[in-house]
Amino acid sequence: MYYDFRADKLREECGVFGIFSRHDDVALNTYWGLYALQHRGQESAGIAVTDGSEMEVQRGMGLVGEVFRQGLPALRGHIAIGHVRYSTTGSSLPANTQPLLVTYSGGHISLAHNGNLTNAHELRQALEKQGSVFQTSVDSEVIVNLIARSSQGTIEDKIKESLTRIKGAYCLVIMTEDKLIGVRDPHGFRPLCLGRLGGGWVIASESCALDIVGAELVRDIEPGEMVVISDAGLKSERFGQKDRKALCVFEYIYFARPDSIIDGQSVYEARFRMGQQLARESGLAADIVISVPDSGTTAALGFSRETGIPYAEGLIKNRYIGRTFIQPEQKKRDLGVRMKLNAVRHTVQGKSIIMVDDSIVRGTTSGKIVRMLKEAGAVAVHMCVSSPPIGFPCYYGIDTAVRKELIAATKQVEEIRQFIGADSLHYLSLDGLKQSITNVASDAMCYACFNCDYPAGMPACTAAGGNKYVFE
Amino acid sequence: MYYDFRADKLREECGVFGIFSRHDDVALNTYWGLYALQHRGQESAGIAVTDGSEMEVQRGMGLVGEVFRQGLPALRGHIAIGHVRYSTTGSSLPANTQPLLVTYSGGHISLAHNGNLTNAHELRQALEKQGSVFQTSVDSEVIVNLIARSSQGTIEDKIKESLTRIKGAYCLVIMTEDKLIGVRDPHGFRPLCLGRLGGGWVIASESCALDIVGAELVRDIEPGEMVVISDAGLKSERFGQKDRKALCVFEYIYFARPDSIIDGQSVYEARFRMGQQLARESGLAADIVISVPDSGTTAALGFSRETGIPYAEGLIKNRYIGRTFIQPEQKKRDLGVRMKLNAVRHTVQGKSIIMVDDSIVRGTTSGKIVRMLKEAGAVAVHMCVSSPPIGFPCYYGIDTAVRKELIAATKQVEEIRQFIGADSLHYLSLDGLKQSITNVASDAMCYACFNCDYPAGMPACTAAGGNKYVFE
Amino acid sequence: MYYDFRADKLREECGVFGIFSRHDDVALNTYWGLYALQHRGQESAGIAVTDGSEMEVQRGMGLVGEVFRQGLPALRGHIAIGHVRYSTTGSSLPANTQPLLVTYSGGHISLAHNGNLTNAHELRQALEKQGSVFQTSVDSEVIVNLIARSSQGTIEDKIKESLTRIKGAYCLVIMTEDKLIGVRDPHGFRPLCLGRLGGGWVIASESCALDIVGAELVRDIEPGEMVVISDAGLKSERFGQKDRKALCVFEYIYFARPDSIIDGQSVYEARFRMGQQLARESGLAADIVISVPDSGTTAALGFSRETGIPYAEGLIKNRYIGRTFIQPEQKKRDLGVRMKLNAVRHTVQGKSIIMVDDSIVRGTTSGKIVRMLKEAGAVAVHMCVSSPPIGFPCYYGIDTAVRKELIAATKQVEEIRQFIGADSLHYLSLDGLKQSITNVASDAMCYACFNCDYPAGMPACTAAGGNKYVFE
Amino acid sequence: MYYDFRADKLREECGVFGIFSRHDDVALNTYWGLYALQHRGQESAGIAVTDGSEMEVQRGMGLVGEVFRQGLPALRGHIAIGHVRYSTTGSSLPANTQPLLVTYSGGHISLAHNGNLTNAHELRQALEKQGSVFQTSVDSEVIVNLIARSSQGTIEDKIKESLTRIKGAYCLVIMTEDKLIGVRDPHGFRPLCLGRLGGGWVIASESCALDIVGAELVRDIEPGEMVVISDAGLKSERFGQKDRKALCVFEYIYFARPDSIIDGQSVYEARFRMGQQLARESGLAADIVISVPDSGTTAALGFSRETGIPYAEGLIKNRYIGRTFIQPEQKKRDLGVRMKLNAVRHTVQGKSIIMVDDSIVRGTTSGKIVRMLKEAGAVAVHMCVSSPPIGFPCYYGIDTAVRKELIAATKQVEEIRQFIGADSLHYLSLDGLKQSITNVASDAMCYACFNCDYPAGMPACTAAGGNKYVFE
Repeated sequence: MYYDFRADKLREECGVFGIFSRHDDVALNTYWGLYALQHRGQESAGIAVTDGSEMEVQRGMGLVGEVFRQGLPALRGHIAIGHVRYSTTGSSLPANTQPLLVTYSGGHISLAHNGNLTNAHELRQALEKQGSVFQTSVDSEVIVNLIARSSQGTIEDKIKESLTRIKGAYCLVIMTEDKLIGVRDPHGFRPLCLGRLGGGWVIASESCALDIVGAELVRDIEPGEMVVISDAGLKSERFGQKDRKALCVFEYIYFARPDSIIDGQSVYEARFRMGQQLARESGLAADIVISVPDSGTTAALGFSRETGIPYAEGLIKNRYIGRTFIQPEQKKRDLGVRMKLNAVRHTVQGKSIIMVDDSIVRGTTSGKIVRMLKEAGAVAVHMCVSSPPIGFPCYYGIDTAVRKELIAATKQVEEIRQFIGADSLHYLSLDGLKQSITNVASDAMCYACFNCDYPAGMPACTAAGGNKYVFE
Repeated sequence: MYYDFRADKLREECGVFGIFSRHDDVALNTYWGLYALQHRGQESAGIAVTDGSEMEVQRGMGLVGEVFRQGLPALRGHIAIGHVRYSTTGSSLPANTQPLLVTYSGGHISLAHNGNLTNAHELRQALEKQGSVFQTSVDSEVIVNLIARSSQGTIEDKIKESLTRIKGAYCLVIMTEDKLIGVRDPHGFRPLCLGRLGGGWVIASESCALDIVGAELVRDIEPGEMVVISDAGLKSERFGQKDRKALCVFEYIYFARPDSIIDGQSVYEARFRMGQQLARESGLAADIVISVPDSGTTAALGFSRETGIPYAEGLIKNRYIGRTFIQPEQKKRDLGVRMKLNAVRHTVQGKSIIMVDDSIVRGTTSGKIVRMLKEAGAVAVHMCVSSPPIGFPCYYGIDTAVRKELIAATKQVEEIRQFIGADSLHYLSLDGLKQSITNVASDAMCYACFNCDYPAGMPACTAAGGNKYVFE
Repeated sequence: MYYDFRADKLREECGVFGIFSRHDDVALNTYWGLYALQHRGQESAGIAVTDGSEMEVQRGMGLVGEVFRQGLPALRGHIAIGHVRYSTTGSSLPANTQPLLVTYSGGHISLAHNGNLTNAHELRQALEKQGSVFQTSVDSEVIVNLIARSSQGTIEDKIKESLTRIKGAYCLVIMTEDKLIGVRDPHGFRPLCLGRLGGGWVIASESCALDIVGAELVRDIEPGEMVVISDAGLKSERFGQKDRKALCVFEYIYFARPDSIIDGQSVYEARFRMGQQLARESGLAADIVISVPDSGTTAALGFSRETGIPYAEGLIKNRYIGRTFIQPEQKKRDLGVRMKLNAVRHTVQGKSIIMVDDSIVRGTTSGKIVRMLKEAGAVAVHMCVSSPPIGFPCYYGIDTAVRKELIAATKQVEEIRQFIGADSLHYLSLDGLKQSITNVASDAMCYACFNCDYPAGMPACTAAGGNKYVFE
Repeated sequence: MYYDFRADKLREECGVFGIFSRHDDVALNTYWGLYALQHRGQESAGIAVTDGSEMEVQRGMGLVGEVFRQGLPALRGHIAIGHVRYSTTGSSLPANTQPLLVTYSGGHISLAHNGNLTNAHELRQALEKQGSVFQTSVDSEVIVNLIARSSQGTIEDKIKESLTRIKGAYCLVIMTEDKLIGVRDPHGFRPLCLGRLGGGWVIASESCALDIVGAELVRDIEPGEMVVISDAGLKSERFGQKDRKALCVFEYIYFARPDSIIDGQSVYEARFRMGQQLARESGLAADIVISVPDSGTTAALGFSRETGIPYAEGLIKNRYIGRTFIQPEQKKRDLGVRMKLNAVRHTVQGKSIIMVDDSIVRGTTSGKIVRMLKEAGAVAVHMCVSSPPIGFPCYYGIDTAVRKELIAATKQVEEIRQFIGADSLHYLSLDGLKQSITNVASDAMCYACFNCDYPAGMPACTAAGGNKYVFE
C-alpha cells in the first residue's frame, strides 16, 4: 500500500493554464506553467495544443515531470492550455485526465476546469435525457456538452449560454482553433489571472505560473468575466447575473503558493498577518515559535514578529517524499509522520513551544507531531492554527472529506486539544481571519467550511441526503 | 525509427470478444480470448467488465500481454467484453483504444467494434449538428451516440434503431449492466461466432478464441442477427433489411487463424484448397514447393499435395520479432526482410522452387525474398499467390493502403513479375478462389478488393473524391 | 505467476557474437547478430564495444529488443561482442548478465561465454584461496580471473594458459582494446563459426547470425582452436591437448536454427533425415503426419517424405506468446498448452495421426497435446520422437533439469506411452540418430544425455553426490 | 537534456546504513534509513540482506523510492546494509551501484562505502598486478579485494590489515553472514553513528536515519574505530595509527540534515551560530534577512536573531522539482533558477535585503537569484555566505568540480561580488566558522577546501599533475 503524505491536508482539485502567442513555444510554456501550479494537483496532468487547424492533446497520470518525460505534444502551435488535477478518491482514473478535447459541430474544442459544479449531476441527467453520452466523470465533460448543444451562433455566445446553466465554482480555460478563452464564475470562487508575455497572453490559476514563464501579471480575471483572446487581441465581456463575490479564503490560508498574488492580495502577506492576528488573539508566551513546514511557516513568522518570541526550525521535512510504499505494521508506529518530519532536538529540548500550522482536518497528524516534539524534549507544546475550525465540507472544488471525518465537525476545541495532546490549542477567529486579508473585502470571500454559509448553495443530492457528500 | 514487419501485408483492424457467465472469471476469460485473437490487432487492447451495477474498463496501447502486465480490471463481474485493434496510420492514439465505456440515460454501456462504417463521417456530422461531441475518431463512438439518442424504450430497440442508420461492416459486442449483446451487420462482412461455456455464453470474432477458453462453438451469428444474452438466456432477433451476404473472402485467404471455422467453413481447408487449385491453374513443375511462412504454408501444402512436388522449408522465420528499431541506412540493404526471414541454403541450393504466398500488396517484400532465395542458390523461383491480384482498396475494415500503393492497381501481372524478379508469377483466379471455399456460397462473399464490386457501397467522401481513400 | 512456455523443453544457455570491423557500426551489427541468436537465450542480453581506448558495456534482463529499446552503447568503436543468455532457475540475476567487462593489469577485457565448465567450482575455490572475489555466478568470471592471474606475457598466452586449466564446454568471444579473440573448447561441444564481412570479421554461435548481417560463412572454428583478429589480420593457433571431438548432438536435434550450418552439416538436412530414419524405424502407417510446431516440423516433413503419408498442419501455434501471467486455477485445465497450441479440427478429425516432436523431457506437455488432438476428433495419435530417450542430465551448457524430472530416466518407453496417452510411441534409435547426421563423424559428437558417456567427465560435486546435479 | 538543479552546489557522494536485529524487518528498516539519508545521494541506491547463509542484494539507479518501487529484497534476514550514492560525472553507471556483494574464500561479504580513498588508483594497480580484476570504478571494490587477499585468519583481522593499506576518507558498513561491521577512518572525515533499536543495533551516516526507524543514538563511531556486531553483542576495537581528527566541516555547513547530531554537535546549532557569527562579522544593517531555501535558512535565522533584523521568506522553492527536461534556448533565460525559486514580491519590494546562503561554488546561481530579487523590487541585496570562500577541491568524498570552476579559486571577493551583482558580499571567516562549532575542537576538523591543508594528503596522480583532479 502507498502512503499519502497529504492525507490529512485539504486538497485543491486543480490548476489551469492557457497561452496564446505567435512568438513562443506554447506547449513548452504550458509545461513550465503547470510545473509552477503542481501544488494544485499531483494526480494527473495534460497539455492541449492547436496550430489553427489541428488540435492535439497529451495527458497522463502522475506529476507534470512524469507525464511529459518522453516529451511534449509534437504539434507546434500558437495556442495551448494545460491542467493539473488532484481528484477525490474513487475517480482517480486515466479517463478523467484533462484537458478534454472533442470535436463538435463547430470544429475542435479543448477545455480545462478548476472548481466544482453544484448542479453537475442534474445537468448530466438532463443531457443524458437529450441523448448525450459521458465517457468521464469530470465536470468539464458536462460543460463541453452544453456548449456543443447551444443554439447560439458564435463560440462566445455558445459558452455564455452554457454558463447560464451551470452553478458552483469554475475557472475555465477553453481553446478553439483560433481562440483562447478564460472564464471565471460569477462568485469568483477560484482564482484566475491574466498575464502578458511579449505580444502574447497567458491565463493561469495563480500568478506564480506567470512568473515562471516570464509573463507580467496584468490583472485578475473578474468574477463573471469571460476574456477572449485571438489574433484580434483581447476582448472582455461579462456573462450572467451579478453575484456575491466569494473567493475561497483557503487559497490564502493554504492552497496558493505564497509568492502568488490573488485578487490583488499577496498570499504571503495574508498568511503573515494571520500569524500576527493569531498571536494577538492567543496571547501566548513561550520560548520559541516553530512551524509545521512548509505551509505553516509564513504564519509562524508573523506570530514571531508580533510577539517577539524567536522563530526557530523545530521540525525538518524530508525533501524527497514521493510515492512511497508503507507496510501495515509500520503505519501504527507513527512512521507516516516520521518519514516526513523529524524534530530538531537542539531546538525543542527543554523549551516551551508555540507550534503554528495552517489548519486541522482530521487531527491525527497534529497529534503525532505533538508527540514527536515531546519525545524530543519539549516541555510544552501550544498549537496555534492560522484558520478557524473546519466544520463543514466544501462543494466548490476542495476535497475536505465527508463531514464526519472533520474533527471540528464533532468535537469542541477543548476536546480537540485533548485528542492531539497539546498543552493548549488556539484557532484564529473568523473575524481575525477576515481582518488579516486587507486587500479583499471581507464579504467578498467564501467561508463556508467555517460557517456553513454556502454562497452558491450545495448540491441537490446533498441537501436531499444524497450519497456523495454525506452531511451526517 | 521502428520497422513494421507487417508493413507489406494487409492488416485486419480489430477482434472482439464477449462473455456472460455467472461461474467463470469473465475478465480472465476475455484476456485469454483476446490473446487468441491477437493476430487481428496488435496496436491496442482493452477489457470492460460489469458486475450488474458498476462498470469498469482497462485499456492501453500494445499487445494484450503488455496492456495487462500489471493485472486485469479489479471488478469481479459476470459480463465482460474485449477488443484488440490495429489502426490505420495517423489515428494510432491512446484515445482510440476500445471498448468504449459511457454513461447515457439508460445507465452504463460498453461497446467494441470490428469493421468499418461507410457512412461514419455523415453520421458524425449529423450527430454533431444535434449537439454531440466526439472524443475519439473510432466508429464505436458514433454508434454509441446513436444508441443514446434513440427514442426507443429498450436497449434492444435502441440498438436496432441505430443499426438502421449505419452502413458498412460491423461486428459489435455490447454490454449493459445486465446484458451481453452481439450484432453482425446484414452483409456479414466480418466473422462473429457464438459459443457455450458451461452455463454461460461467449461471443468472439473467431472460433479459436472459443477454443482457448474451452467453450464449444454453437454457431456463427448470422448476418443481420442480434443476440441478446442475459440471465433470462439467449434471445435472437433479426434487424433491418435482408442484404446480400458478403463475408470478406480475405478472412479465408489470410486474416483468420487456420484453426478457426468461419460460417461453417474451416479456414485451414479453404486455404489448403486454394493451394490445390493454384497448382492446377498454374500447371507448374519444379523441384520443391516452399511457403513464405507462416501465412503461405497451408496453401503451399495444398499445392504440394496436388502436384506431388515435395514441400520443404525454404525460409525460416525469426520467432522473436517484436518492436525493433532499425536505422535508416540499414533499411536500404534489405535488412527488414533478413531480420524476419532467412533462406535455408540446403533446401534451396540448386533447386527450381515454387514459392507460395497468400497475397501481394506492394510487392516490395516479395522482391526481397526472391532475391534472398537466389542468393542462397535457387536456380529458379516461381511465385504462386493463393489469391487474385488486389487492385482495389477495402472500405470494410481492412487497411489496404491507398490504391496507388497496390502494385496490382497499376501493373499487369508480367510487370509485377519483373518487379519482383521471379521466373514466373501465378495468381489464383477469382473463380478458382470461389471454388476453393466449398462451404460458403460464392455469391455470399465480398471480393471487392479483387473486382471493385462493393456490396455496401463506398464512403461518400471517396466517391466524391475525398481525401482519405484516394481512388486515383 | 508467469507461465514459461518452454518449461518442458531443453534450454540452451547462451549465444555469442563478435565482430571486428573498421567499416561497419559494430554495435549495430552485434545487435542484429544477437537478434538472430535470440533462440539460444531469452533471459538477458548484452553488448560490449571498444574503440581502442575506451570500453563500454550495456546489459540487461529481457529480449534483445527490450534490453536495447532505448538505444545501443554510445561508444563508436571497431570491435564489439555480444551475448544472449538463458539461465537455469535460481541464478536469473541482473548481476549474471554478460558480456563481462573488467579492467586487469593489461587494460580492459570483455568476455562472453557459451557452455558450461565442469570444474568451475574447483577453480572458483582455488581462485578464492588466492584472494579473488566473485560478483557473479557465471563461469565467465572464473575464466577472466584466470586470465588476469596468468604470468604469461601476451594476452594470447594468458588465455592459452588459462584454457589449460578449465574443463568442460566453452565457446568464448573475448575482446581487448585491439583484438577480437574466439575460442572453442577441445571437444567442440558448442558451435562457433567464422565469417567475413567486407574487410572485417565476424564470430558467431551459429551461421544464421552471419546471414543477418550479410557476412559470408568462412568456416567453423575448430575444437581446440583460438583465432585472434586484429588490424594485423586473423591468426589461428591451437591450444591444449588433442581431445575427442564431441559436438552436442542436440544442436542438430533442437537448439540450432534450421537455417544454420554447423561443422559443415546443415541443421535442416540433419533434422529432415532424422524424420526419414524415424519413419523407417517405426514402420508406422497412418492418415497424416503432423508436427508439434515449430521444432518438430522439419523431422515431420522427413517422415512424410519417406513414407508418402501426407504432411498436414494439425496444430496451430500462437505467434504472440510472450511473458504472460497465468493464474493457479487455470494451470490445472491445460491452459498452458491451449494458449500456445490449438488443434486444427479439419485436419485431425477422424484421422489416425503420426505426431512428430523433437524430444520428450518431462512428458507433461506431450500428454496435453495428445489429449487435445483426441478431443478434436483424432482416432489415433502415434507419437514419434526424432531423438532417443533423454535419460541423463547435461553438464555442458544445457539446462536439462535434474535427472529425476526426466521422464525417460525413470520410465520405460511403454510407461511413457501410457503417461502421455498416445496410441504408440516411437523414439529414434541412437544409431539412427548418428546415421542422420552425415557430415559429422558419429564419434565426433556428444550423446551423453542419451547414453551417459560424458566426454569431458562430470562435475566433481556431482560425482561425489553434490547438491546441484542430483544424479539419484 | 535534463537540468540538474543541484549543479551549482557541492555534492556529497554517499550515505550508508546497517542494521543487525533478530526482531525487526531489517530490509524494511534499511529502506527507511536510506530514505532519511537520501539527501546524501540521489543517483543510485541499494540494499543487501543476509539470513546467515544466503546473501542477496538489490540495487538500481534513481531515488530510494524508485529503486524499490517493485519491492524490497525478498530474503528475510537479520542483517542488512544499504547505500545511497551521488557520483561524480562520468561514472554514473549501473555497475557502480552499491552495496557491493561478493563471494571470497571466507564466504559472502557485502560492503558499502562513504568517502573517497586517496590511494585507490595505486592500490588498484597493485592489485591488478597481483591478478585482481575490477568490474566497477568504485573504491569499495578495491577494499573488498584487499580483504579477500588478506592472509589474516578472522574477518576482523582481514579488514584491519586492509585498512592499514588504504588512505583517505572512508566510512564502511560491512556485512558477512553473521556480522555487521562499521568502520570509520582514523581522520573521521565522514560521520558515522551507532544506535540501539530494541535488542538490535543500527549504524548510519547521520542520526536522522536512526530517528526514522525509532533507534536511539548511542554515540558516534570514533575515528579509527571498528565496531563488530554479532549475536555475541557489540565489540569495539581500534585499528591503525593515531591520526589527526579531521571531520569534514562542510557536514555542518551544508551536507548533513539539520536534525542530525554529528560527533556530539547539533548540526542545527552549528548552522545557527554560523549565521550569528556572520552577522557579527559583517556588521550589516538592512530591512530584512532572507535565506536561499532550504539550506541557507538556519544560518539566516541565526543572522536575524543576532541582529534583530526580521527574518522573512523572500524566495519560495518549488517542492516538486525532480528530473525535469529543459531545452537549450530556455537555459539562457535563467529558467533553471526560475523553475526552482521565485521571489515573493511582497517581501522584497522596496526593501534592502540580507540574503544568506551556505556557500558559493561557481557563482552562477547566486547571480541569477540576486537578479531575480532586484527584478522583484529589492533596492539592495547584500549576500552573506555562512562559510569561507571555497578555493580548493575536496579529495575526501565531496564532488567540488575541478578547481578552475570554483569561483573563489580565481577571483577575489570583490570580483565575485561584481560577478553576482550583489550590493555587498560577506563570507564567514575561517576563524568565525571554527568558533561556531562549539562541541568539536577546531583542530579536529578538515578545512582543506578553504585553506588547502589536506589532512590525508592528496591523490598521487593529482600531486603529479594527473588527469582527474586538475589543480590548474
